[in-house]
Amino acid sequence: MDKNITIIQIAEESGVSIATVSRVLNNTVPVSAKTKERVQKVIDKYHYTPNPLAQGLILKQTKTLGVIVPDITNPYFSTLFSEIEWAAHQSGYSVILCNTAFSAVSFASGERRKEETYFQMILDKKVDGVIIAGGQIDLCEIGDSYIEALKRLASTVPAVVIGRKLPDIPCTFVNKENDSGIVTAIRYLASLGHKRIGFVGGEREVYITESRLDAYHRTLLELKLEDAPEFVATSDYYMADGYHAALQILDCGTPVTALLAMNDNVSLGALRAISDRLLSVPGDISLVSCDRFYDGEYLTPRLTSLDRHNDLLGRHVIKLLLDKIQGLPAQDAVDFSPELVIWESSGPAHL
Amino acid sequence: MDKNITIIQIAEESGVSIATVSRVLNNTVPVSAKTKERVQKVIDKYHYTPNPLAQGLILKQTKTLGVIVPDITNPYFSTLFSEIEWAAHQSGYSVILCNTAFSAVSFASGERRKEETYFQMILDKKVDGVIIAGGQIDLCEIGDSYIEALKRLASTVPAVVIGRKLPDIPCTFVNKENDSGIVTAIRYLASLGHKRIGFVGGEREVYITESRLDAYHRTLLELKLEDAPEFVATSDYYMADGYHAALQILDCGTPVTALLAMNDNVSLGALRAISDRLLSVPGDISLVSCDRFYDGEYLTPRLTSLDRHNDLLGRHVIKLLLDKIQGLPAQDAVDFSPELVIWESSGPAHL
Repeated sequence: MDKNITIIQIAEESGVSIATVSRVLNNTVPVSAKTKERVQKVIDKYHYTPNPLAQGLILKQTKTLGVIVPDITNPYFSTLFSEIEWAAHQSGYSVILCNTAFSAVSFASGERRKEETYFQMILDKKVDGVIIAGGQIDLCEIGDSYIEALKRLASTVPAVVIGRKLPDIPCTFVNKENDSGIVTAIRYLASLGHKRIGFVGGEREVYITESRLDAYHRTLLELKLEDAPEFVATSDYYMADGYHAALQILDCGTPVTALLAMNDNVSLGALRAISDRLLSVPGDISLVSCDRFYDGEYLTPRLTSLDRHNDLLGRHVIKLLLDKIQGLPAQDAVDFSPELVIWESSGPAHL
Repeated sequence: MDKNITIIQIAEESGVSIATVSRVLNNTVPVSAKTKERVQKVIDKYHYTPNPLAQGLILKQTKTLGVIVPDITNPYFSTLFSEIEWAAHQSGYSVILCNTAFSAVSFASGERRKEETYFQMILDKKVDGVIIAGGQIDLCEIGDSYIEALKRLASTVPAVVIGRKLPDIPCTFVNKENDSGIVTAIRYLASLGHKRIGFVGGEREVYITESRLDAYHRTLLELKLEDAPEFVATSDYYMADGYHAALQILDCGTPVTALLAMNDNVSLGALRAISDRLLSVPGDISLVSCDRFYDGEYLTPRLTSLDRHNDLLGRHVIKLLLDKIQGLPAQDAVDFSPELVIWESSGPAHL
């Protein structure tokens, strides 16, 4: 395709009017088979496609979506994106991916990239819809400038946000966080005789972490299990965080017999810490991951984890967005109840 | 921002001509401070930004790039993308990410998504440049329709391809694959007394796999180490592949004392296989990863690996593309020599 071929040249070379070329391209008003063939030949010759910018100006659609995530190298977000992109592609949409590198720590230190800049960039591209998966939206306290920017974004284009519902913002909110998984995991560990269970990883002031911690404390209380501040060590969502947080709990002076880790990467770091303290899994410590990223079957030890169906979530939010763009009614809520997959990393308490 | 506010309305409400608003927006011809202030006030009131589609039609640029990868859930590609997107963002570009799900296996079975469709989609978006990282371009035998589509793409927009140079295609090719890493790793294992070294993972008919296998066989020959067909088990690039391929070698009847694995995910699968055969690392088997994805310090055992500087590669290709778009001369070649990072998973041969 020559970038500079225009509808005018197609019309000239076919010997028809611009309107006729437009009819052939858009299949609107019928055109005689003979004329159609003649025009199509010239279109094919130059691999001509209508300029989408011009089409976008007329149709007010760009067939482009925006997806905003804090870290595409985190398997949670790359799995989500992969599902979103595939469904979008099948419906003829391209996806602009914005990787904001947002973290609560960098936010507090003022070092973050501005998500609001990304919102504006996305609006500038006249996208047809936006999905926001994580970032400042996940903080317990969200900044005013973010709220303003989100309102502006959502007032301009259809937007789906993965996170808890905020008042007065015209987004569709999908709250996939489900406390039931934490309750199930702790009940399971209690049934194996564990009485001191630690909680590793995640960031304080982040909704998902606080919500899981609430469920953790509530369930310990309900089951009359020991709850102590030194059994909780938060930090972030990666291997190094799991390592340092787990060490902190293992070194606290009161031995735990089980650890709940925020996700599979935190679990791998915790596993390293447990090994560095010459303890074994599950002999000395049972380990359960609260968000499954990898097929636990291939890890050593095979990892017990909560499968939160992140792939389903991706498929759900893109369907919500595409339906919203087309003005279709919202689909029924989807059940994201996590499922506990039991493997080798958990077993009876031995203390 | 109201999607429907136009430059005409800004001009009307400010009481100036459209040309004057345009001058204020584009900072071209000087405008009196008083007039500028009046116009800016109305612009701010509506959060007006010039329609980029209209700007794109005039300036023939969209400030949008396309990046095409086979699997964004693979840490190699998510790391690359993360670096590319950040540099693009800093230069005012948004990035459309196409996830083609290409694999040699799905290609052979005809089940793949068509990369050519993505190429056309990207062209339709009038992107200013494209980066292709992997996919059919990595096959030893590339299909004609792909070559044709790539030629068309690269003749239309600046394109940078990560892979070996193909003739008669106007792309910039960056060949980061460097045999020296495999040679270094085998020499290192030989220095520890290993005489039978297996090779795990990767896909046959894929350039990167074949090129590493060539280096593997060449180095074994050079060091007069045993080379046997049953010491090589390829499959794909993920944990499950590493698991099954490693089992195949461990069960072949001739015991190896070391394994080279295609990357960290393949290594984790191989580790699982070694453990299932009740062997230890590095006591019975030394394990070296040929492409480092994770910080080996936090794995159990800490993983010896080749760091191929995938982050540097990402920064390099986006700089190449942005320079190409601006018509700047190509920068000097960058040295991607892999670096062997020695940790606990490798040690002296005990057989």
